[in-house]
Amino acid sequence: MTNHPQKVLIVGGVAGGASAAARLRRLDEQAHIVLFERGPYISFANCGLPYHISETIQDRGKLLVQTPEAMTQRFNLDIRIESEVVAIDPERKMVTVNSRERGQYEESYDQLLLSPGAKPIRPALPGMDHERVFTLRSIPDMDRIKEQIQAHRPQHATIIGGGFIGVEMAENLREIGLDVALIEAGPHILAPFDADVSVWIEHELQQKGVHLLAEHRLTAIAEQADKLQLSFEHPNQPLETDFVILAIGVQPDTAFLADSGIERTDRGHIIVDEQCRTNVADIYAVGDAIQVADKVNGHATAVPLAGPANKQGRIAADQIAGLSTTYTGTQGTAIIKVFDLTAACTGMNEKALKQQNIPYQKVIVHPLSHAGYYPGASAMTLKILFDEQGKLLGGQAVGKDGVDKRIDVLATAIHFKGSINDLTELELSYAPPYSSAKDPVNMAGYAAENIRTGKTRVFAVEDLSTRDEQSVLLDVRTKKEFEQGHIPGSVHIPVDELRDRINELPTETEIWVYCQVGIRGYTASRILEQHGYETRNLTGGYKSYAAMNR
Amino acid sequence: MTNHPQKVLIVGGVAGGASAAARLRRLDEQAHIVLFERGPYISFANCGLPYHISETIQDRGKLLVQTPEAMTQRFNLDIRIESEVVAIDPERKMVTVNSRERGQYEESYDQLLLSPGAKPIRPALPGMDHERVFTLRSIPDMDRIKEQIQAHRPQHATIIGGGFIGVEMAENLREIGLDVALIEAGPHILAPFDADVSVWIEHELQQKGVHLLAEHRLTAIAEQADKLQLSFEHPNQPLETDFVILAIGVQPDTAFLADSGIERTDRGHIIVDEQCRTNVADIYAVGDAIQVADKVNGHATAVPLAGPANKQGRIAADQIAGLSTTYTGTQGTAIIKVFDLTAACTGMNEKALKQQNIPYQKVIVHPLSHAGYYPGASAMTLKILFDEQGKLLGGQAVGKDGVDKRIDVLATAIHFKGSINDLTELELSYAPPYSSAKDPVNMAGYAAENIRTGKTRVFAVEDLSTRDEQSVLLDVRTKKEFEQGHIPGSVHIPVDELRDRINELPTETEIWVYCQVGIRGYTASRILEQHGYETRNLTGGYKSYAAMNR
Repeated sequence: MTNHPQKVLIVGGVAGGASAAARLRRLDEQAHIVLFERGPYISFANCGLPYHISETIQDRGKLLVQTPEAMTQRFNLDIRIESEVVAIDPERKMVTVNSRERGQYEESYDQLLLSPGAKPIRPALPGMDHERVFTLRSIPDMDRIKEQIQAHRPQHATIIGGGFIGVEMAENLREIGLDVALIEAGPHILAPFDADVSVWIEHELQQKGVHLLAEHRLTAIAEQADKLQLSFEHPNQPLETDFVILAIGVQPDTAFLADSGIERTDRGHIIVDEQCRTNVADIYAVGDAIQVADKVNGHATAVPLAGPANKQGRIAADQIAGLSTTYTGTQGTAIIKVFDLTAACTGMNEKALKQQNIPYQKVIVHPLSHAGYYPGASAMTLKILFDEQGKLLGGQAVGKDGVDKRIDVLATAIHFKGSINDLTELELSYAPPYSSAKDPVNMAGYAAENIRTGKTRVFAVEDLSTRDEQSVLLDVRTKKEFEQGHIPGSVHIPVDELRDRINELPTETEIWVYCQVGIRGYTASRILEQHGYETRNLTGGYKSYAAMNR
Repeated sequence: MTNHPQKVLIVGGVAGGASAAARLRRLDEQAHIVLFERGPYISFANCGLPYHISETIQDRGKLLVQTPEAMTQRFNLDIRIESEVVAIDPERKMVTVNSRERGQYEESYDQLLLSPGAKPIRPALPGMDHERVFTLRSIPDMDRIKEQIQAHRPQHATIIGGGFIGVEMAENLREIGLDVALIEAGPHILAPFDADVSVWIEHELQQKGVHLLAEHRLTAIAEQADKLQLSFEHPNQPLETDFVILAIGVQPDTAFLADSGIERTDRGHIIVDEQCRTNVADIYAVGDAIQVADKVNGHATAVPLAGPANKQGRIAADQIAGLSTTYTGTQGTAIIKVFDLTAACTGMNEKALKQQNIPYQKVIVHPLSHAGYYPGASAMTLKILFDEQGKLLGGQAVGKDGVDKRIDVLATAIHFKGSINDLTELELSYAPPYSSAKDPVNMAGYAAENIRTGKTRVFAVEDLSTRDEQSVLLDVRTKKEFEQGHIPGSVHIPVDELRDRINELPTETEIWVYCQVGIRGYTASRILEQHGYETRNLTGGYKSYAAMNR
């Protein structure tokens, strides 16, 4: 720590900025800490905004985690709301502030911490600036949407963009009885998930009455007879709605740094090192506005999430106070509630692995959230991705219960650069209300280990199109299961009859086996392999097939 | 794998034995696999037994995870129930079997896998063999207890032993309306937890009407006018009850190995290596009957839990099939539902650390299960233990929600020999219904890191008795909180007034600070330290104090 009290300016008073201010004061009782926040609120619960719109969170005041008054008193801060930092002069160590109350002025600093956050992307399309096209990022944004609903009693809302905010808004607007259309440009919503997981979420949305329109690319919004008319590049079918929530993503809110000399990426993310230092001396940056390292593969990435922002705020404060902690990167752990389902992910997904040409294998299992004989168990879909050495690359899960726990365990394993063998060894808490003696994470590890050690080969639903016509597609489920639905072209021999009826199968070709979730298929493939057959077993089984072919 | 089909005998058809049989068949289609089970059922849901007594699990059949018929068909096994292996002759590679159906006979083996399990301890006290003194280990045990309740409509049940089974039985008998006394010889129930966690469970039991009698050492049971009379060494107050569940623990059921040459510990646990091999060639052992290594400190231990038994069964099967996987030890992860609470633990506790003279520090936090502004959040108590280098030694938690998740994350971190710094870095899934931007595990990590790096010193509730009379005990909560209850002898200055009133505190002595949960106390201690005071902050705060002084 320095001898004379240092003057620290913090730009942005939400997650990263507020965390940094509190930490810094705990470390340095003498520093003069000024917190600039453009909006009227600091440290508000950004992630809670959609839930106040549905009144799931009834009390608006609960979203204001800290008031300027309370935080000033506790941490002896100089908090200036409605004060936007519009320029930085590193030479003179000065920032220019536009204050609603005081007009424009300059403020000097010894250390400067940037936590400006991100802002919603508004594409340059006709009608995007219509007053009934909303975004949701701040308390005033939320207030505007609530006011729209209360004052105008709209029937129909359209959400543009199937990301986390878009899906959360679809749920919350549907919860209060609106007809909701959710528009997604790509084939599937929620890009952090692969299709075999996102189909479950899409199904849940549809079951709950959300009108999901995938592969719809918006071209314009126009007002017509008090309604809004949305046009699409394809299909040529317009959509009428009462108001629009635009949620196609965010971009770093860093235009004010243009002349500062602070290095940014093409997309505008501030480039920092592991100590959250920018290229300019005494200037630090944290939160949604910065570029970070991907923990799994070391590549540069950016994840606008509250968890990393809070951690980075603390690390930057440590630096300013003369301590040396480091931010080791992000692994993109994320979670979303979608009506009765939870979906969560961590690490890399297949899309990213393919893009970066990283070889991988996948396993999908559908274990129960806890012991099947104890009431309330429900099945989840759990997917893990791993490399040839068995190193864990990523995990995704969706289900009604216990999804957050399993993804947090996988996130922890990935943090430690763990392998699928580690997953088999993890000793997780088991009693019938909570798990099974082999936890879903253990199960996924065992299934993966059986692949990696050559005990079984698998195929995925999307591989079915590559199957050799000569090969046999073998359903080993019960007669009843087979009759209720099967993959076209399947031969049927229940696993318990397989040893007796093995001669019915031709030996000169590959047998593609499947059962309901993959376990009986594995047993069948082991029987067949030991009788000289070459086999592959459908990972995730017919359940995954049916989910992707609904 | 061997060329001729090998003959494998498995002794014990529950967790470890059944797992091993299924795995072995998948690896070796040719082997002759004989599974001996002393009782009438294989692979039953041992952990579910207490819940069928209360009819929480209504269908008894659900507890029979596998029937001999189904398992025989699927895995081509030779399953022999009601067949007890009573002796082993490794010289001749023979076992002696007492079969209900066939009488006594011998069976030869190439490989022998022992999974005999454990049996309830029955102390040699008067009345222990009374027909209304039950134990609970098997389906017939459960049936007998259910029959007792249904046929005799008892009013009052007494459980001897506050371990997992004892507490689960207390809950389940209370759930069906019985008056229940739970007798514990030690000062606290559930030995895997330390007192600062078990007090929460004890409170929950009492709140739900269980009559908890700690420090009661049973001396005798006698029938008197159709009631059972329990006498204790101390206090001298007998207890009248209708029936007794004896649940003071289990011992390995390995007496039949007496003349086998297989090495066992003094307590009877079979000694095995990492491949589950005994000292005798071609004989393996798994499950509750074996001694294992403690993953945290390498010491020998024994944990009668289903998770490890299943894992070991698989490893022994791998060995028999010529593969080489290893069992890396146990860390004693365990969990229990107690009415509305969940308590879970992993790694070492304070009792074990003290016993083994391992220096440690502890942190207790009381974070919310998820964001406080989202409905349904509830506080948990989360405790972590770590060594001087910050290596994580153990974790314990108790609360209404999210306890299993946090302990599983800690269990995973301990598996990877993680540190408290790792806990601060973990990127866990966050959305308001699931967690906070800083997860409880992160919070515990931060609190621990602040201690390890010297930013704060803490004291625990039990340290209060060692406090120097000259020191100041300072309550920094609000006036209202202080008035509702505080630690006797406290001075009161709210944290937000501390900077202004700091002169009220003498500088020549240590200040022992506390708040409600530890966070404001930490902030206060940082303010004081930077003004030249020596401070300690109460880990867990007044909340932990009040829980231990109810």
